[in-house]
Amino acid sequence: MLSKRSSGKTVGVAFAAALLTLIVLYHISRRRSISSILTSSPLRSRILSPRPKVNAAFVMLVQNKDVYGAVNTIRQIEDRFNLNYRYPYVFLNDKPFTQEFMGMMKKASKAEMTFGVVPVEHWSYPDWISKEQAAEARERMRHVIYGSSESYRHMCRYQSGFISQHDALLQYDYYWRIEPDVKYSCDLDFDPFRYMQENGKNYAFTISIYEYAETVVGLWDATKEFMEKYPHLLAENNALDLISDDGGKTYNNCHFWSNFEIVDTRWMRSDAFRQFFDHLDHHSIGGFFYQRWGDAPVHTIAAALLLPIDQIHFFREIGYYHNPFFNCPAEPELQSKCHCDPALNVNRERFTCTAKFLELSGAKRMVYPEELDDYYEE
Amino acid sequence: MLSKRSSGKTVGVAFAAALLTLIVLYHISRRRSISSILTSSPLRSRILSPRPKVNAAFVMLVQNKDVYGAVNTIRQIEDRFNLNYRYPYVFLNDKPFTQEFMGMMKKASKAEMTFGVVPVEHWSYPDWISKEQAAEARERMRHVIYGSSESYRHMCRYQSGFISQHDALLQYDYYWRIEPDVKYSCDLDFDPFRYMQENGKNYAFTISIYEYAETVVGLWDATKEFMEKYPHLLAENNALDLISDDGGKTYNNCHFWSNFEIVDTRWMRSDAFRQFFDHLDHHSIGGFFYQRWGDAPVHTIAAALLLPIDQIHFFREIGYYHNPFFNCPAEPELQSKCHCDPALNVNRERFTCTAKFLELSGAKRMVYPEELDDYYEE
Repeated sequence: MLSKRSSGKTVGVAFAAALLTLIVLYHISRRRSISSILTSSPLRSRILSPRPKVNAAFVMLVQNKDVYGAVNTIRQIEDRFNLNYRYPYVFLNDKPFTQEFMGMMKKASKAEMTFGVVPVEHWSYPDWISKEQAAEARERMRHVIYGSSESYRHMCRYQSGFISQHDALLQYDYYWRIEPDVKYSCDLDFDPFRYMQENGKNYAFTISIYEYAETVVGLWDATKEFMEKYPHLLAENNALDLISDDGGKTYNNCHFWSNFEIVDTRWMRSDAFRQFFDHLDHHSIGGFFYQRWGDAPVHTIAAALLLPIDQIHFFREIGYYHNPFFNCPAEPELQSKCHCDPALNVNRERFTCTAKFLELSGAKRMVYPEELDDYYEE
Repeated sequence: MLSKRSSGKTVGVAFAAALLTLIVLYHISRRRSISSILTSSPLRSRILSPRPKVNAAFVMLVQNKDVYGAVNTIRQIEDRFNLNYRYPYVFLNDKPFTQEFMGMMKKASKAEMTFGVVPVEHWSYPDWISKEQAAEARERMRHVIYGSSESYRHMCRYQSGFISQHDALLQYDYYWRIEPDVKYSCDLDFDPFRYMQENGKNYAFTISIYEYAETVVGLWDATKEFMEKYPHLLAENNALDLISDDGGKTYNNCHFWSNFEIVDTRWMRSDAFRQFFDHLDHHSIGGFFYQRWGDAPVHTIAAALLLPIDQIHFFREIGYYHNPFFNCPAEPELQSKCHCDPALNVNRERFTCTAKFLELSGAKRMVYPEELDDYYEE
């Protein structure tokens, strides 16, 4: 009896050891694979739950009515990337989220989710802004895209300067901004957050374009005053030449399209960034209300002036679509993970500044589909 | 030494046994889960490759130029269903596929793929059709949707009667037709092919609508002649009342939208189906060329007359979108796996016959989102 029991024990121990060895070996040698094979398994939560490797979250500012657009985005983030990492989601809204909205999001991902409301003081008129003058501006700008919208202006100001200070985001070092109804068209077999952290990147984009000049009236004047007043805040090796073609006299309207952005929130909460935003926000031009300054040019100018250019990154491998523009890599080793058409890559067009960014930052240039025959001969 | 080696052997055997036990236990208890956790693993091909459970394939008739639309569809089929099953794909084209097209498809799925060309005798004018009269018909029907298109007519005739006879499909018992640029919006945690097989279904759809009357001129006259000539081929308990509101005098234009269809190909290759198609194809009306008969009404009429209604199935749980129509279930237990809006479900509209089908076939009626409060009280 004893011998039998002991032999049973031995097998039990061997079994456990075998299981542990299997797990550990695979975990060590194929960290990504083991999390990926466990993502849709009931073992997941018990043995090797995929865990975020970086202190980071997705963030979506969204209204209840956009529930299906939002869940479509989550579905893609999960399918292409996050099933293997389980980074948390933070949803923000200027009104409380409905049960329906929250339920729909939760069924799309097992990642942790927070549903927050934007504090009213971040989504209303500051006392130095005249509501009448703001209303006149909206009337005057009816012909400009979103020029007549009041909520769009609150949104732009919020994204420009306040989002990284939301209670729900304070604990995270990075956020990845997502929006309803965008498309992610490539399997990501790496962790963009980790790339940011390991390479000291503070701001990352996938698409850049030139802004409608009518929306940024006065923004460069205010920026120039900032540069004169706070020269010590400007970074050495900054990217001024990306956003100005004449050494800083004028803004060329180049901006990172901020509906996608991965940001080091510690930088966004830094004195330099706060100083820049507050300067714009309090400026007599009142551009967030009396013009229609967008968060994209504001973030771009901040990144270009306050960061060395090598802390800004273009994620060429993240296939991305926000109506009406695509990023889609043509490089064969990247394209092989995508289901988008590299011929539609907006970053190759004349109305973007991505190629210029790559040149200024000394990064490898983009490859165009028509060059592929020569690609491997270079 | 000997004892050490022997102990090493014991652990080795225990290790192997442990591994085997783990696999077998999980394979038995969670067949679907184990295949799903292994789908993106390097273990996959060595240990437990997911295998099709039914002798079935996806089929897409597609042109080289639609490569990105096609790969978008494959991506979704894989993400929502086929990663766990690895059903093969058959791609058919009236011209040879390019290397680019084939390479793009292969990178989207590890399932077996066949790339076939439609035999020229299935995509050209039969000798009993006058090319001049066909050209006149295209000119006359310029105002009708696709009325002026020659290739669309070849396509409709091919899908109506020949596709199941293609060499690449002959070996399969079922095909699931897919198209470029469609959307699959629900996780499928069951196998539709297996459902068909186990429940003796021969034809399945997700969307039905009423056809443009201008495209089916003469189709019902030809059908009535068929019914008179071959009464023995008509099924008992057929679905005549689905497609005719007056006991067979006229066609009400109801048809299953055949851009999605799951079909028992043995039925499509049966004498009854062949007889019906040949009757239409050889009919003096020449409707595939002198009119613009679509494969959707042809398949629908064939299914409605040649099959008992209980061999036709509506897959309400397969969320599906083909421009401009959605199927999207509202039943909470189904909706919980979807990322589509049940309010947009076209099958609830007056211009579809899905509700009528459910009533005639004695199946549970569809639930509408606005009824959900009462749903669990019924």
